[in-house]
Amino acid sequence: MSKKLYLGIDMGGTSIKIAVVDAKGLITEETSIKTDLNQSPAKLANDIARQAALLKNYPKIKSIGIGIAGDIDCEKGVVRFSPNLPKWRNVKLKQIIEKLTKKNVFVDNDANTAAIGAFWLDAGGKSDNLICITLGTGVGGGLIFGKKLYRGKTCTAGEIGHITIDSQGHKCNCGNRGCAETYIGANYVARYSVDYLKTHKSKIIDDMTGKDYSKITPKVLYDAALKGDKTSVEIWKYVGEKLGVLLADIVNFINPDTIILCGGVSLAGKFLIDPAQKEMKERSFQTAYKACKLQVSHYTSKLGVVGAAMLAEQ
Amino acid sequence: MSKKLYLGIDMGGTSIKIAVVDAKGLITEETSIKTDLNQSPAKLANDIARQAALLKNYPKIKSIGIGIAGDIDCEKGVVRFSPNLPKWRNVKLKQIIEKLTKKNVFVDNDANTAAIGAFWLDAGGKSDNLICITLGTGVGGGLIFGKKLYRGKTCTAGEIGHITIDSQGHKCNCGNRGCAETYIGANYVARYSVDYLKTHKSKIIDDMTGKDYSKITPKVLYDAALKGDKTSVEIWKYVGEKLGVLLADIVNFINPDTIILCGGVSLAGKFLIDPAQKEMKERSFQTAYKACKLQVSHYTSKLGVVGAAMLAEQ
Repeated sequence: MSKKLYLGIDMGGTSIKIAVVDAKGLITEETSIKTDLNQSPAKLANDIARQAALLKNYPKIKSIGIGIAGDIDCEKGVVRFSPNLPKWRNVKLKQIIEKLTKKNVFVDNDANTAAIGAFWLDAGGKSDNLICITLGTGVGGGLIFGKKLYRGKTCTAGEIGHITIDSQGHKCNCGNRGCAETYIGANYVARYSVDYLKTHKSKIIDDMTGKDYSKITPKVLYDAALKGDKTSVEIWKYVGEKLGVLLADIVNFINPDTIILCGGVSLAGKFLIDPAQKEMKERSFQTAYKACKLQVSHYTSKLGVVGAAMLAEQ
Repeated sequence: MSKKLYLGIDMGGTSIKIAVVDAKGLITEETSIKTDLNQSPAKLANDIARQAALLKNYPKIKSIGIGIAGDIDCEKGVVRFSPNLPKWRNVKLKQIIEKLTKKNVFVDNDANTAAIGAFWLDAGGKSDNLICITLGTGVGGGLIFGKKLYRGKTCTAGEIGHITIDSQGHKCNCGNRGCAETYIGANYVARYSVDYLKTHKSKIIDDMTGKDYSKITPKVLYDAALKGDKTSVEIWKYVGEKLGVLLADIVNFINPDTIILCGGVSLAGKFLIDPAQKEMKERSFQTAYKACKLQVSHYTSKLGVVGAAMLAEQ
C-alpha cells in the first residue's frame, strides 16, 4: 500500500521551494525555482506547476499546499497582497493552481505554514499547544492548538510581533506603539545597533563593515559575537531580554507546551536565547514556565515548505 | 422527554451560589449559602450537598460543576489553594463531593467558569473564539476556542492580567513588572486614584469618602463619575486606555470574535469602555479589530454559576 503524500510550495521572495512530503512531515523529494518578481501570476503558476510535475511522485499527490507572506484570505485561497510579489493584488492563487493541476489546493500565510512545519519537524507532530515565532524583518507567529492551526475569526491570529511590550515605546509600522517587533525585528535590531555603537565602539564590527553601519544585519552581529565582540553580545542581550518579555506574555496567556523560534534573528542562538530564557523565567508563572519548552527550530529553511504541504492534512 | 440539566456551584468568598442550569445555559432554579471561611472542607461540602438536594430537579442531575478562585488542578479536581478559602490546602474537592452526591463532579478556576458562562449567556453559545476578562482585584481570563474551554498545558492558560503592558512598569505581585493588572486591577485603580487626587482635587470624592481615601473603590469612582466628577472621569480614562492596550494585544494575537468584560471594575461601563475601545482601535490590526465584538457582560453575577454547571457539557 502506498503512503499518503502531499505537495508543499513555499513562495519566498528569492526562491520558490517545492517538495513532496509524507504523512509525518518528512520531505521525500524537493526542487525549487527562482522567484521572478515581474512575472504575472498566471506565468509564475505555470512555471511552478511544470517544475512540480517533474517530481517522481507528483502523480500520486491529491492535494497541494502553498505558503506565502502577506495578507492571505485562507478560506478562498486569495493572495490579497504579498510583500514577496509586490505587484500581485487579490490573486486567486488557489483557483489558478487548481485549474492547472486538477488537485485540491490550500493557501495560507507563511507564518502559519512555518508553525505547521515546526509542529511536524521540531515537535514530531506531538505538541498539543505550540507557538511558532518567526523572527525576521517582521515578527510573526503561528498557533497550533489541539494539533490544529488556530486562525482566529478572520485568519489574522498570530500577529505576535504586534503584542505591546512598552505602551509608550517606538512607533511601529502597524500604527501601534512599542510592539515587540520594534525591539526584536531584524531592521529594528540593526537600527538599535547603529545607535548603540555611537557610545560603545567595536573594532570587530568596524572591521567587518568597513565602518559602514548600513551593512549591519543580525548575521553580522551574530558573527561578531562569535568572534568575541562584547558590544554585539550586549546588543543580543538587550534584544533577548525584550524577546523574553514577549515569551513570558505568551506563557502566562496561552500556557503552551512548546515555543519554537525560527527566522533570521533566531540564528543568533545562545546570544539571543540565554538572556531571553532568563527574562522569560523571571516574568512567567512558574508552573507554566516549567511546562514550556523553548527552542530554536532545527529546520528553519524547511518549515515553510513542509508546513505548506501539511496544510492539506489540517 | 426531559431536558438535560446540570448543577453549578460558584464558591465565592462571601456566598456559594448553587443553580440548576439547562442545556442552553439558562438557570431554572437557584439557591445559595453563606461561605464560612473557618469551616473544614468536609463540613462545607456537606452543607453544599444538603442545600443542593433541596432543589426540585436535583434528582435528575447527573453531573455537577464547581468554580472556585485560585490554583486548581482541574484534571484531578483538587483545590491546591484558594484565596476565598485561605485555610484550604490541596483539598480533593471533586472526590469529596462525588462521594457525597454519587454524581460526576468537575472543578475549575473561576475565571474559566466565568468564560464558559459568558459564552452561554452573553454570546448565546455561538462564538467560535471568545475571551472573557475578569476585572476584579485580580485580572484573570478564560479562553474559549472552537466552543471549548482552552486550558493550556497545565490548566493555567488565561492569565491575561499578567500580560506586560510596560516592561519597565510597576512591580506586580506575580513577580513580573508592568503587568496589565498593575494598571487595571481594582486595588491598583484605587491606589492610582489616591495618587492622582494629590494633584487633582475632587470635592465629590472628598464628600463621598469624608476625605478618607482608603475608602476609594472602583464603585466609588464610578458613582462619582456618574455625579459628573471630572477627576473620576479622567481616572477611568487612564484605566481604560491601559485596558485598551491589553485588548489590542489580544486582538492582534488571538483575533477573537468576542471579548467579554466582567467583574467589579467592568461595572464602570462607558467611563471605562469608551477610552478602552478607542485605544484598542488605534493599536489593533483593523481587519481583526472590526471582527471583534467588545462588550461588558450583562450577567456578571451569574457567569460563575452557569459556567460551573456547563463544565460538564465541556
